[in-house]
Amino acid sequence: MSERVEIVSIGNELLIGKTLNTNSHWLARSLVSLGLSVDRITVVRDNVAEIAEALREAMQRSPNFIITTGGLGPTFDDMTLSGLAQALNSCLQLNKKALKMIQEKYVEIASELGCETLELTPPREKMAVIPEGAEPLPNPVGTAPAVTIKWKTVTIFALPGVPQEMKAIFEDSLLDPLRKAIGDRARFEASLHVSGVMESEMAPLIEEVMHANPLVYIKSHPKGSENNPVLELHLSTTAKNIATAKTLVGRTLVQLSAVVEGAGGKTRTGTIPSAGS
Amino acid sequence: MSERVEIVSIGNELLIGKTLNTNSHWLARSLVSLGLSVDRITVVRDNVAEIAEALREAMQRSPNFIITTGGLGPTFDDMTLSGLAQALNSCLQLNKKALKMIQEKYVEIASELGCETLELTPPREKMAVIPEGAEPLPNPVGTAPAVTIKWKTVTIFALPGVPQEMKAIFEDSLLDPLRKAIGDRARFEASLHVSGVMESEMAPLIEEVMHANPLVYIKSHPKGSENNPVLELHLSTTAKNIATAKTLVGRTLVQLSAVVEGAGGKTRTGTIPSAGS
Repeated sequence: MSERVEIVSIGNELLIGKTLNTNSHWLARSLVSLGLSVDRITVVRDNVAEIAEALREAMQRSPNFIITTGGLGPTFDDMTLSGLAQALNSCLQLNKKALKMIQEKYVEIASELGCETLELTPPREKMAVIPEGAEPLPNPVGTAPAVTIKWKTVTIFALPGVPQEMKAIFEDSLLDPLRKAIGDRARFEASLHVSGVMESEMAPLIEEVMHANPLVYIKSHPKGSENNPVLELHLSTTAKNIATAKTLVGRTLVQLSAVVEGAGGKTRTGTIPSAGS
Repeated sequence: MSERVEIVSIGNELLIGKTLNTNSHWLARSLVSLGLSVDRITVVRDNVAEIAEALREAMQRSPNFIITTGGLGPTFDDMTLSGLAQALNSCLQLNKKALKMIQEKYVEIASELGCETLELTPPREKMAVIPEGAEPLPNPVGTAPAVTIKWKTVTIFALPGVPQEMKAIFEDSLLDPLRKAIGDRARFEASLHVSGVMESEMAPLIEEVMHANPLVYIKSHPKGSENNPVLELHLSTTAKNIATAKTLVGRTLVQLSAVVEGAGGKTRTGTIPSAGS
């Protein structure tokens, strides 16, 4: 069993179709290639009650980790930490460590701008107001610190929505605890491009191979149409080490190629670089 | 009050970060520009129980519409209709109208391929097995019909995951009922690009203008950094007609530009083509 993660993406721009949710895509890809399993992605708007509701629901499903993105900035519509506090039934308080991180950032910015000092206005101070018991995580790129807090067996990380800030904090502060949680399991994946066999003909053949290889997940992605069929079969597994994972996927690839060729189709293999340890 | 929609995206490929969820982005954009409000997007894997759970939760929140994407095809991992039946406490049954749609598709494909006939194998027939009481919607591009069913006040649409099929069915079969539901309200939006003022300085100014214009939603998108600040302010509203919507946004734009210039910043306006009626 993999460690389970839920992602909660916060921001009106995601629900009006203004911004494509590339953050959850990047996070899912990174988490899965580390060997974790992403169970659900939930997108909610900038609204304290709706954020709290989505977080509470996710917490009740007891994943190992919940990662939120968005809503940590200085503006009135950055509401993630209020929603998190409400979900945890805790209070928001000014965190001294977070305040220090923000102060240092504005000293840095002032010196870059050649200004004497940049006042710690209420919107700037707001970024240091986090749920009681939470810890700030440094933001190497922007000003708003990320936040982490533990609830029962669930570790929650609240990351900013600006992609380069989110990625930098993920790499600086999340990789270690995530790797520690998954131990030494490794993931391997590969693709098989199939042409000349219809998806509906492939379905029972894939099922057969999957039943013979229960540890390998096979997913078919139609790329052409039923009368000009091109299929991509995506194979993946997580195992206790990379050698085992490669063996499992390799054996399944060989069997799949055989049934495709038996059905009159052609195959081409594509290996996906593995990020497993 | 806008009619509320929830989107449920179904597919393991979305949770392993293989496929970017462009379907929900396209749907959100289309729905919002028609004047509807998208409350939540939920992404779950190809698993009957998890699909049913996500649908049941969405149904309990009583949106006017739930739109699902993915999981309607012929393969073993296409489970959306099983999940929908479970959520509705209804049975799956072979639908004659759906079967006829699929049969006609395979006659078409066979004639294009120059074959005599294409057998209606179990995986192909599976696409006609839909929840009791549901109606199939023709798929002008692919083979799997979409499905619609009403539960209390909620209208549910299950669309395929292949983007061109999803979009074609949306345009052929969803536009009419959606437009009927929203009546004659219209949406208008515009952008204001702000340079030379920090986001944290803009925050209280935006709040002030927003309070004076409660029907216009203003969202700030940082595009630069705190020491080289470029902000995009996105303004939008839905009103009973396009003239009213334009007036509301226009008045707010003028006020926002004035406060930005008062704070020493520069502005540039961008109008977004409106899809409101």
